[in-house]
Amino acid sequence: MKVGGLLASAGINIGLCVLFLSLYSILRKQPSNVKVYFGRRIAEERNRLRDAFILERFVPSPSWIVKSLRCTEDEILDAAGLDAVVFNRIIVFSSCYTQCTTGPADAFIFNSIRIFSLAAILCILGVLPLNYFGQDMLHVRIPSASLETFTIGNVQERSRWLWVHCVVLYIISVVACVLLYLEYKHISRLRLCHISRATSNPSHFTVLVRGIPKSSTESFSRTVQGFFTKYHASSYLSHQVVYKVGKVQKIVSGAKKVYRKFRHFKGTAVDQRCRSITFQCSFCGASSNSFQLLPIDFEQESEIPNVNDSSFSSTDEECGAAFIFFKTRYAALVVAKILQTSNPMRWVTSLAPERDDIYWSNLWLPYKQLWIRHISTLGGSIVFMFLFLMPVTFIQGLTQLEQLQQRLPFLRGILEKNYMTQLITGYLPSVILQIFLYTVSPTMMLFSTLEGPISHSERKKSACCKVLYFTIWNVFFVNVLSGSAISQVIALSRPKEIPMQLARAVPVQATFFTTYVLTSGWASLSSELMQPFALTWNFIRRYILRMEEDDLLYSFPYHTEVPKVLLFGLLGFTCSVLAPLILPFLLLYFCLGYVVYRNQFLNVYCTKYDTGGLYWPIAHNATIFSLVLTQIICLGVFALKKSPVAAGFTVPLIIFTLLFYQYCRKRHLPLFKTFPAQNLIDMDMEDQQMGRTEDLHHRLHNAYFQFPDTDDIPLEGVHSVGRDEDGSGTSGESSRKESADDELSHPTLDGLPVSRLRNAVRSLGSVLRPQRRELAV
Amino acid sequence: MKVGGLLASAGINIGLCVLFLSLYSILRKQPSNVKVYFGRRIAEERNRLRDAFILERFVPSPSWIVKSLRCTEDEILDAAGLDAVVFNRIIVFSSCYTQCTTGPADAFIFNSIRIFSLAAILCILGVLPLNYFGQDMLHVRIPSASLETFTIGNVQERSRWLWVHCVVLYIISVVACVLLYLEYKHISRLRLCHISRATSNPSHFTVLVRGIPKSSTESFSRTVQGFFTKYHASSYLSHQVVYKVGKVQKIVSGAKKVYRKFRHFKGTAVDQRCRSITFQCSFCGASSNSFQLLPIDFEQESEIPNVNDSSFSSTDEECGAAFIFFKTRYAALVVAKILQTSNPMRWVTSLAPERDDIYWSNLWLPYKQLWIRHISTLGGSIVFMFLFLMPVTFIQGLTQLEQLQQRLPFLRGILEKNYMTQLITGYLPSVILQIFLYTVSPTMMLFSTLEGPISHSERKKSACCKVLYFTIWNVFFVNVLSGSAISQVIALSRPKEIPMQLARAVPVQATFFTTYVLTSGWASLSSELMQPFALTWNFIRRYILRMEEDDLLYSFPYHTEVPKVLLFGLLGFTCSVLAPLILPFLLLYFCLGYVVYRNQFLNVYCTKYDTGGLYWPIAHNATIFSLVLTQIICLGVFALKKSPVAAGFTVPLIIFTLLFYQYCRKRHLPLFKTFPAQNLIDMDMEDQQMGRTEDLHHRLHNAYFQFPDTDDIPLEGVHSVGRDEDGSGTSGESSRKESADDELSHPTLDGLPVSRLRNAVRSLGSVLRPQRRELAV
Repeated sequence: MKVGGLLASAGINIGLCVLFLSLYSILRKQPSNVKVYFGRRIAEERNRLRDAFILERFVPSPSWIVKSLRCTEDEILDAAGLDAVVFNRIIVFSSCYTQCTTGPADAFIFNSIRIFSLAAILCILGVLPLNYFGQDMLHVRIPSASLETFTIGNVQERSRWLWVHCVVLYIISVVACVLLYLEYKHISRLRLCHISRATSNPSHFTVLVRGIPKSSTESFSRTVQGFFTKYHASSYLSHQVVYKVGKVQKIVSGAKKVYRKFRHFKGTAVDQRCRSITFQCSFCGASSNSFQLLPIDFEQESEIPNVNDSSFSSTDEECGAAFIFFKTRYAALVVAKILQTSNPMRWVTSLAPERDDIYWSNLWLPYKQLWIRHISTLGGSIVFMFLFLMPVTFIQGLTQLEQLQQRLPFLRGILEKNYMTQLITGYLPSVILQIFLYTVSPTMMLFSTLEGPISHSERKKSACCKVLYFTIWNVFFVNVLSGSAISQVIALSRPKEIPMQLARAVPVQATFFTTYVLTSGWASLSSELMQPFALTWNFIRRYILRMEEDDLLYSFPYHTEVPKVLLFGLLGFTCSVLAPLILPFLLLYFCLGYVVYRNQFLNVYCTKYDTGGLYWPIAHNATIFSLVLTQIICLGVFALKKSPVAAGFTVPLIIFTLLFYQYCRKRHLPLFKTFPAQNLIDMDMEDQQMGRTEDLHHRLHNAYFQFPDTDDIPLEGVHSVGRDEDGSGTSGESSRKESADDELSHPTLDGLPVSRLRNAVRSLGSVLRPQRRELAV
Repeated sequence: MKVGGLLASAGINIGLCVLFLSLYSILRKQPSNVKVYFGRRIAEERNRLRDAFILERFVPSPSWIVKSLRCTEDEILDAAGLDAVVFNRIIVFSSCYTQCTTGPADAFIFNSIRIFSLAAILCILGVLPLNYFGQDMLHVRIPSASLETFTIGNVQERSRWLWVHCVVLYIISVVACVLLYLEYKHISRLRLCHISRATSNPSHFTVLVRGIPKSSTESFSRTVQGFFTKYHASSYLSHQVVYKVGKVQKIVSGAKKVYRKFRHFKGTAVDQRCRSITFQCSFCGASSNSFQLLPIDFEQESEIPNVNDSSFSSTDEECGAAFIFFKTRYAALVVAKILQTSNPMRWVTSLAPERDDIYWSNLWLPYKQLWIRHISTLGGSIVFMFLFLMPVTFIQGLTQLEQLQQRLPFLRGILEKNYMTQLITGYLPSVILQIFLYTVSPTMMLFSTLEGPISHSERKKSACCKVLYFTIWNVFFVNVLSGSAISQVIALSRPKEIPMQLARAVPVQATFFTTYVLTSGWASLSSELMQPFALTWNFIRRYILRMEEDDLLYSFPYHTEVPKVLLFGLLGFTCSVLAPLILPFLLLYFCLGYVVYRNQFLNVYCTKYDTGGLYWPIAHNATIFSLVLTQIICLGVFALKKSPVAAGFTVPLIIFTLLFYQYCRKRHLPLFKTFPAQNLIDMDMEDQQMGRTEDLHHRLHNAYFQFPDTDDIPLEGVHSVGRDEDGSGTSGESSRKESADDELSHPTLDGLPVSRLRNAVRSLGSVLRPQRRELAV
């Protein structure tokens, strides 16, 4: 590929970017789109914007960029939670923007130097000229010079100037490690603040117990009470057993309906059914018989023979999981972390996720199943990873113009035109790859759902890891190791030759990666900003379906965006020394990303749940992996260029980086796996001194109520499951309604709501029966 | 190798075995050797045997075998602790002896079927004839038939009879898994019993804290007290700071001496110095300046200018570790398992080992160092593993007679004789390998010491793992992958071809492994029984050095014996289907081992410390590894023999075995990493009901006293370190004196013994000074 081709590709993408950004700055001012672009703000403020026609609305303006740049980390923390800050820091780590952080301590150390701006300066000024003038050759005009001229491939063997590459590699590695350490420290501190600040968070007092042993004589509730009053009497407060939604929901709604029917029957049955028709795959949650589709014959029928059929038996309703509330945070932590009994598959305790974060339908999975689910999904993901090779191979074919002409001879006429050639080699391959990659995140989200996580955030984090491995393998390695499935397997089967192979391939493939940054990176940022899907859906709903207004609230799709940013970091590191021409484009991507994502956090996405910064260790590991991979590739390149000195100096760098990784694991990682006792005890003491304890305990009783009021959101839990399963990659989570006032409007049904309600329902006799049928649909 | 050669080798070894066993049965009856063969008994009973001359003493007798077989598991548990029972079970798992276990539940299930007796029956009756008549060939007389005739290598390609091998493999795998599961369950129960039974064990109440932050204003003791009274006020009882032995020991002994000098000065200075001359490598414990060899000028000198020199400053004396005593076992467990502060490198808590198990000199290592020590020793072990190849390569050369004749032409005359050839090919190689292998366990013990474990048992366990990896790699893989370093590295660099290579090599190398079982296995058992080193040392000491009597008390060398038994298990599994001729010899080894080791546990070794069954997970993992390796090799062999059906049926077996492994990890492993809360709380409650609590708390104060009485064993802590460093592989641990009455004879020096003692010492003025010098030597 020539420089001209690259510039064409860059031109197209810059044009598209400017177009999208302008469009965005116009579209965001249209009142009809306000829900698309200011979802979070609206949810916060709940006031309506005026619908007047003003010319200003149709003039592009950069005001949103200014706003996005001006906001501080604290504002993001308040608006979008710790995960957003972490995501922001992942980008800041890689970009050049100077930012005033919360703590004054690290403000003046290395904070203003960000790794890729440094790398860009060093490599463009130091390495690029060396590469370009690396061989005695006749240089053509730069626009028609081959891009390979700018890579390390152009440097002569045994060149005296390879030490420059080695020194630059050293500087980049050391600065990256220092920055990583500072970031880890900073985020650890933020995590501690995040914990300490949430004084009234009920999840700190709550432990989720799974694998409660079934007893033939006692109910789960009794068993739980017996166990905890015996072994944790001093700290145990109360508990709440988790019910399968299908059964209890039916009974509760049924009872309510019956009550209503006696007063003023409104015939809501049809509407009710219409909303609740949703089916559930038997893998992802409740057993299917809880939503069995009974024949719709309730209108004809007046008598049902067996009330006591198996689907109504009492043991089925409760499942072997419960929330246990403790008097102090420390007590909850202790119970969560200690092995309870001699059977590690029973009485499995873990700190409860927050109420809005809980993935209810996974709670009633038997704990015994989980290990096999983990393994199966792992196997499934790996199979998927290898099946994905086929489209990628096809794309590889497209990048090589000769092959394309051979395979599709009817295209030859078109392909002979110069601009078409440039378009196809520069632009098309990565677009196709991009389209295929859109299917990855929903698939991985599905796998993560099947794994059985108990919270939405855990599911998203798990999907994030899967997508990350997938992306690194399928975008980086497969492209580098030149495509086809067979050559990959061969590459895998000879681990010793991998460094050499990478060293040969990476400088050559750097061109592809540069265009990939342009297309995938820039375009995805524009589309992230524009939200084409949401925009279209909003349009269809408003003007075609004429549906009533509803809030569009998505949570940020970390599982697609974190791997994307980390992949670009990997590309940046690996290409930095070898093919530095990628760096300016990458730097532009990160700066644009910085502005765009901040804007999205502030305006669009709503934070329903938060992992508390758990994405940082993933980012840290990925960055260290990128660094080590870069060093190994450089080692291979130096060996190929027959420069034993440079190669020899690279080995200690690899060892140093690995030691640094190990140190960070020891020093910082434990904080991300648990909470420190000291901080929790301090919080408990403060509560006691302030006299807040009683109030907190009182609140706990309603904090984990399982069923929201059915009048407003019928079968809400079921809905959320059904919608989440598709795991739509770009649009993120299903738009589950946030009911901030849930906590207060719930009827308090602790103790044994099912049995009481059932008794009530039974006493109503035959009036109930058609209702049950109706609700079971 | 011919069958004759094998029989010659077996004959020699059986002869040697019988000789050694007879010798043992005579030697054990000699009063002078009673300390060698009945060390444990003597330590228990402390009565002397009569020294009369009786003829019976010189007649071999099998009574010890009967005694060894008759004792029950409970007796071993009482005599030698849980680890001995676990070791016993590892052998029983592999052998055929039917044994009545403690629980009646599993006595009649699978307990009498042991894996190798089953394998031997199946393979000798089913597989061996198939192999022998596998090809249409002229069979010579069996003694001169090649051993390869009995392996699967003799079966024709595409043979219809390969399904028999596959079925046998299935049966062995499934039965092994069932047995493993039952054993895991049984040992888990034993471990729980072990915990519950030790009601007065002070280590359950004690937490070891390391990484106590240094404060400029407060002593460590104050810091510790401050922290635990603030954060664990309800359960904290008291604490005890760990001191560096050098300093405090000197002061304590000094003060005592001075006191004695005023009363009756006995001039013990020379004797004292003579015993305490020992030096310490700076890597393995205290800094060397705590034992600095001052010039021996104390007799001339009467005035020393500076009392307040740096080696006497107060901050050096305490080190950042302390024992914290809690009121209940559960409280101690909780503190040990929860992350204490936001810095994971500070206030690092773990359950304390038992008093006799503590490796004192590692306690005053800074906690921050440990991670780097871990990595360095890992690196060191790997380097050692690869340097070890050289002698092994040489041995490989010896097994091939032609190469030997080429290399050492002067041997040609000797080698031409038939019996010499048989001796050299059948016997010599494994003897040489054996001798080299003797250096392994001391080296690995040294590495484990450098790692910085806090207890002797932890050190031994770590050494056991290292030796196991080493043995499996260097005995099994290196021999199979045909020796030289280069071909090994090539094998490693092509993982895909490893199964095929193993499939080709294992049946061929089975002959070598059979002789290895004969020499290494049988001979090592005889020497274990005879204790040649201890016997010689005892003889020299008694009759040449004429030293006064001293107890010879070793603890069992798990770090050499566990890997040995597991290696033979691996050989048994991998050869079972492919070359079943090894099985009878192996079965004999296990049966003999069963008798010998039981005898040793009952009579010879003294259990000073116990891991509580932690060797079982190692054995379990190694067995699963052996199984999977066997299956992979069989898969390769079936593929080589072009039997797609058999190969295809082996794949699900591998998956099933791995799933079983994962299930066991989930179901049983957590119990071996921590204690279950339920059991500890039950014990605490029982204590409270029985009114034992006060008594237990009272005992805690003296339980972890660091310094034994210096009158009896001068500088004992230093001695034990110095002797342990050589880590003599065969003789196991250093013979540190067990002072059972330590607990009572100690002066209670909790609180701040150093400062008080130092004040006392200082007030004694100049009389002290020469003493200090003297003790510092």
